[in-house]
Amino acid sequence: MLICRVVGSIWATRKEDHLKGFKFLVVQPETLGSFDTQQPVFIAVDRIGAGIGDQVMVTRGTPATFIHHEETVPIDALVIGIVDSVDIASGDSQ
Amino acid sequence: MLICRVVGSIWATRKEDHLKGFKFLVVQPETLGSFDTQQPVFIAVDRIGAGIGDQVMVTRGTPATFIHHEETVPIDALVIGIVDSVDIASGDSQ
Amino acid sequence: MLICRVVGSIWATRKEDHLKGFKFLVVQPETLGSFDTQQPVFIAVDRIGAGIGDQVMVTRGTPATFIHHEETVPIDALVIGIVDSVDIASGDSQ
Amino acid sequence: MLICRVVGSIWATRKEDHLKGFKFLVVQPETLGSFDTQQPVFIAVDRIGAGIGDQVMVTRGTPATFIHHEETVPIDALVIGIVDSVDIASGDSQ
Amino acid sequence: MLICRVVGSIWATRKEDHLKGFKFLVVQPETLGSFDTQQPVFIAVDRIGAGIGDQVMVTRGTPATFIHHEETVPIDALVIGIVDSVDIASGDSQ
Repeated sequence: MLICRVVGSIWATRKEDHLKGFKFLVVQPETLGSFDTQQPVFIAVDRIGAGIGDQVMVTRGTPATFIHHEETVPIDALVIGIVDSVDIASGDSQ
Repeated sequence: MLICRVVGSIWATRKEDHLKGFKFLVVQPETLGSFDTQQPVFIAVDRIGAGIGDQVMVTRGTPATFIHHEETVPIDALVIGIVDSVDIASGDSQ
Repeated sequence: MLICRVVGSIWATRKEDHLKGFKFLVVQPETLGSFDTQQPVFIAVDRIGAGIGDQVMVTRGTPATFIHHEETVPIDALVIGIVDSVDIASGDSQ
Repeated sequence: MLICRVVGSIWATRKEDHLKGFKFLVVQPETLGSFDTQQPVFIAVDRIGAGIGDQVMVTRGTPATFIHHEETVPIDALVIGIVDSVDIASGDSQ
Repeated sequence: MLICRVVGSIWATRKEDHLKGFKFLVVQPETLGSFDTQQPVFIAVDRIGAGIGDQVMVTRGTPATFIHHEETVPIDALVIGIVDSVDIASGDSQ
């Protein structure tokens, strides 16, 4: 999973079937620790009430569809948690 | 999902079986927010009527095949929505 | 799917079971539009008769195995079409 | 699989269903051999007792969900082993 | 599939279930043709007897688990062949 920040929302009226009612957020992978290269934003489905500014955990790929929905849906990213806290050890963890 | 711009079309007469009738678009991932590195174009199947210049949401990987088609098809990208609007918060979202 | 050029062939006598008879091509992702960074070559299975120099569409990941073969096979890339033509809009498509 | 170092932990009370009880670690891909470009951290589920500072093997994607759990879960990375030793041949392996 | 060189081995006593008996190799993606950027090493399961210095074909992702094993296993890379020869056309293949 990636640690991301919710930075926006996106709307599409004309959609593939089976996607009505899904909420789509724009998320930005966070730069943490010694890695500070910006990565591109992408879109994730949210079913747990995340909002702009929230730090979230995002699952990508087929597992994003393992949501026990009544049918499979063509999505590839899902917000699976809203982060309470993240502890990164300092550089001496080696 | 990625936010992409439709930039072209591609045709192939000689194809794997089960791909007759599919429409293939060339899409370009968009640079949004503070990320401005160009990413390579790729090909996505479209079933909802997207055209050149449209901003679209694209699902990649196996979920692109979750289209309730009569059989599985060997495709790895699908246009799932034509974007009405996208709101990206300004840099103070941290 | 990626647009690639067929640049070579590869042979392996000692293989995982269930891969006998498959033809393996070396393919190079093409640089198109404004993106001109070279990407690494990879290997794709071909079942439609592609040859050196052909421009092809390549599906990657699990969908490469959705080929209605008698059993699942451990491959992750498949040539799904030989390109007749590709039209990329000029830079004013924004 | 990637060779990673466990560098942190992450907590989320508000989560997708079916994720209660899972332990989430922050892992950093290791730089080994002649490749020394830092890669971003990500989150992996751990079920085998890995801790901060441990060198671990991490499986990503759908196979991370092949854990014989009672139901499918939307995770995309799993710690599958705690490394005892890793031997990398010197540069003359060509 | 990727063309890789076997550069090492890795051992882990404490592992996820269902992984006993698997052999894990460290592999380095090869630089071929005009692409010469080093890529990071990763770990692949080997069931066909590859050794240090061998050039191998590696399947990644879920297809790496399509090995007709008695149960699904959480691995994401598999050596599928030991390369006999690879022919890359010279730069005039365009």
